Amino acid sequence: MIDKDKFDEWYNEIVELADLCDKRYPIKGMNIWKPYGWKIMQNIDAIIRQEMEKTGHKEVYFPLLIPEGFFKKEEEHIRGFSSEVYWVTHAGKNELEEKLLLRPTSETAMYPIFSLWIRSHADLPLKIFQIVNTFRYETKMTKAFIRVREIHFFEAHTCHTDFEDAEKQIKEDLEIAKRFFRKLCLPFIISKRPEWDKFAGAFYSIGLDVLMPSLKALQVGSIHQYKQNFSKPFEIKYEGIDGKHYYCHQTTYGMSERVLGAIVGIHGDEKGIKLPSSIAPIKVVIIPILFKGWEEKIMDECKKVKEEIEKMGLSCHIDDRDKTPGSKFYDWELKGVPLRIEIGPKDIENNVVSIATRDGIKKRIARNELEKIKDELAEYDERLYRKAEEFLRQHIYIMEKLEKKEGIIEVPWCGKEECGLKMEEELDMKSLGTPLPGKECDKNCPICGGKATTWLRLAKIY
Amino acid sequence: MIDKDKFDEWYNEIVELADLCDKRYPIKGMNIWKPYGWKIMQNIDAIIRQEMEKTGHKEVYFPLLIPEGFFKKEEEHIRGFSSEVYWVTHAGKNELEEKLLLRPTSETAMYPIFSLWIRSHADLPLKIFQIVNTFRYETKMTKAFIRVREIHFFEAHTCHTDFEDAEKQIKEDLEIAKRFFRKLCLPFIISKRPEWDKFAGAFYSIGLDVLMPSLKALQVGSIHQYKQNFSKPFEIKYEGIDGKHYYCHQTTYGMSERVLGAIVGIHGDEKGIKLPSSIAPIKVVIIPILFKGWEEKIMDECKKVKEEIEKMGLSCHIDDRDKTPGSKFYDWELKGVPLRIEIGPKDIENNVVSIATRDGIKKRIARNELEKIKDELAEYDERLYRKAEEFLRQHIYIMEKLEKKEGIIEVPWCGKEECGLKMEEELDMKSLGTPLPGKECDKNCPICGGKATTWLRLAKIY
Repeated sequence: MIDKDKFDEWYNEIVELADLCDKRYPIKGMNIWKPYGWKIMQNIDAIIRQEMEKTGHKEVYFPLLIPEGFFKKEEEHIRGFSSEVYWVTHAGKNELEEKLLLRPTSETAMYPIFSLWIRSHADLPLKIFQIVNTFRYETKMTKAFIRVREIHFFEAHTCHTDFEDAEKQIKEDLEIAKRFFRKLCLPFIISKRPEWDKFAGAFYSIGLDVLMPSLKALQVGSIHQYKQNFSKPFEIKYEGIDGKHYYCHQTTYGMSERVLGAIVGIHGDEKGIKLPSSIAPIKVVIIPILFKGWEEKIMDECKKVKEEIEKMGLSCHIDDRDKTPGSKFYDWELKGVPLRIEIGPKDIENNVVSIATRDGIKKRIARNELEKIKDELAEYDERLYRKAEEFLRQHIYIMEKLEKKEGIIEVPWCGKEECGLKMEEELDMKSLGTPLPGKECDKNCPICGGKATTWLRLAKIY
Repeated sequence: MIDKDKFDEWYNEIVELADLCDKRYPIKGMNIWKPYGWKIMQNIDAIIRQEMEKTGHKEVYFPLLIPEGFFKKEEEHIRGFSSEVYWVTHAGKNELEEKLLLRPTSETAMYPIFSLWIRSHADLPLKIFQIVNTFRYETKMTKAFIRVREIHFFEAHTCHTDFEDAEKQIKEDLEIAKRFFRKLCLPFIISKRPEWDKFAGAFYSIGLDVLMPSLKALQVGSIHQYKQNFSKPFEIKYEGIDGKHYYCHQTTYGMSERVLGAIVGIHGDEKGIKLPSSIAPIKVVIIPILFKGWEEKIMDECKKVKEEIEKMGLSCHIDDRDKTPGSKFYDWELKGVPLRIEIGPKDIENNVVSIATRDGIKKRIARNELEKIKDELAEYDERLYRKAEEFLRQHIYIMEKLEKKEGIIEVPWCGKEECGLKMEEELDMKSLGTPLPGKECDKNCPICGGKATTWLRLAKIY
């Protein structure tokens, strides 16, 4: 893992060196996705889509532009977002009659339409999602994938008959998150955000956070219980079995390109990024080790091996560029390809292939046991996960008193906002919230000395 | 095919009835993609991506917002688009220092960056594409998929060392288009657009047009030769083998959700849409024909058949809703599912399944020959294509004199702009351009009587 103090500089460089993005676009916080980075993001999206399909969510696409009138229907929501939205005021040479905003998130685009789609209890639950570009005029320092102004965004929106059914959805979302982040080898913690930091308009918010090598927490997902906070202003009602009309209960689940930022940051090392095999555009790269007189034999063998690997369902690339093997190793390590195969005269003579995983395990595999590559990839993924998990665990400090630590701090908390804010101030950290699932506490709040009913997690955050 | 006079009304209704989109979003020309329509569009995109991969194009994503300064670098281009662009002028409560526009197309977002990416002849050809939302403030009447203001858009951009290499790219684009539209069962014509109708900034433009049942032509793709028209203002230069610096030659290839509009329009009938099997989200729907005492047997058989069909790589759905078979037929015909299977007691007794293709062919297939479904789908696609091709051929009028006809008219043309415009006026049509590949002509121009060097195609257009 990259050293804390070097992390920022390393991260800012690696995203371009590994060919993920180009930051030279002249609008701050709006970067160009290069082919390699975009392919990885599409692979991440594909995993989300699988999970959504499995859980009965349907994919939709709502317009980017939202009329000001729609946006202003829910007061908390406007308050939360109004300083961050981009406004379209003109089209061609005309001033628009009604200003339009670029979606920062799509509640206010979708919910007036949900009120048309939902008539009866038979229409519920409604479970939809979309993967789109959203826009937030960030004023803080921007950072590739982590804080950008055009965001590649996933948002699921659901409507339910009652609070309990919405709560069930939130449980399902958490299961989705567990499966999803496991595939990306990213350990994370789940916290119920404090009142003062919940999503604009939510009844409560859950944050999914990872810990970056900078020892700052990064929110990589959020799940919100809206109760009827949006359904009332947007008039999303259904007719119950009893013939009466009720407002829906709603939830959302959001994630973004930050997931890629987390992968880059958490798995990376001095050599470059390390991609989990689930999302690597190239899972196996083959480097021919050419010797005079052997060229043809070796290239033939490389092609045969490639073919066999592709039959196993793994993407594979032969690097036949006119460069030294060493400089090829360098390139593919930089780009995080999970597994490298070297094929030289000795490998052919001994009927083996030489493999090296991106995290440094080197082996020979019998030529007729190429299938073992799958196990090697699975073990590689497991090692990525374990290493990240150990790092996370080592940096969670469960303490009775307030004490500055680098990482995530958990302290007893009485539940009062003023005590929470005081802790934030003393630690120079932000609250992540209370642990989920809930964790009992029989200590005292280090601020007021009163009985602590729960724990508060704090960390420096992105 | 839908009758010409009923077409508009039918089209406007069917896009919602078949669950493709919802037009009730309050911004004119910005519709909601419903799950079924979005899935079809994603399947269309998947075919484009395959073709792009096959031809060595890499997928990227450039920012949506373009600084005014970038946009204004190529004069013709601004002139062509300035009346159509949406302007972002404010963010939060601040007026932006430089106005930003929503991309109507991405030349002016990409080309300043190409000038950074391209250094030497070794960087060429550069072949990239993206599939994104673009925006055009259309003032004409909007129409789902055909004329919208937020457009689901495909754009390929290439850079080459010289004009000849760019011309080769255009040939490749035409081959891509042929394969692509063949998979969608859409016959089309290729025309070199007249000077007065080429793309803003292009050296020349090629239009790919289909003929809709309304007998109006619909442009479903366009290919542009830019020569050095953009590379000069945007400074896209490379160092040649001789060490000297040259401006690149560029091309683009664009398509959009109009392709879906064409599929809906051209293949549709009174019962609904007809989807080519290449893009149908559900290729086969199974309808259990339930009789008392047979329920379990029939449902078991449906499940077995589904499993076998899915093993063949075909998406399959059992409609087990509590509705009559007839009303299920109606629903799936409306949505254009290529093939329906009915399974009732007699089918089980006779060891067959009853099939019906969406275009009305009914057959029984022996239960142990289920593989034949693939042939049935291929033949169905072939019929869709042939029918559309016949319709197109029947409505191309090759004539020596100007005479009003409904469809596409081809007349001898001297090549002079004034004669072309006069023909447009007299026929109340627009020029599609001259046929590609070129077609000799030994007639006279019906306007000036001078020697016609080529043919001009005209039609009413969308």
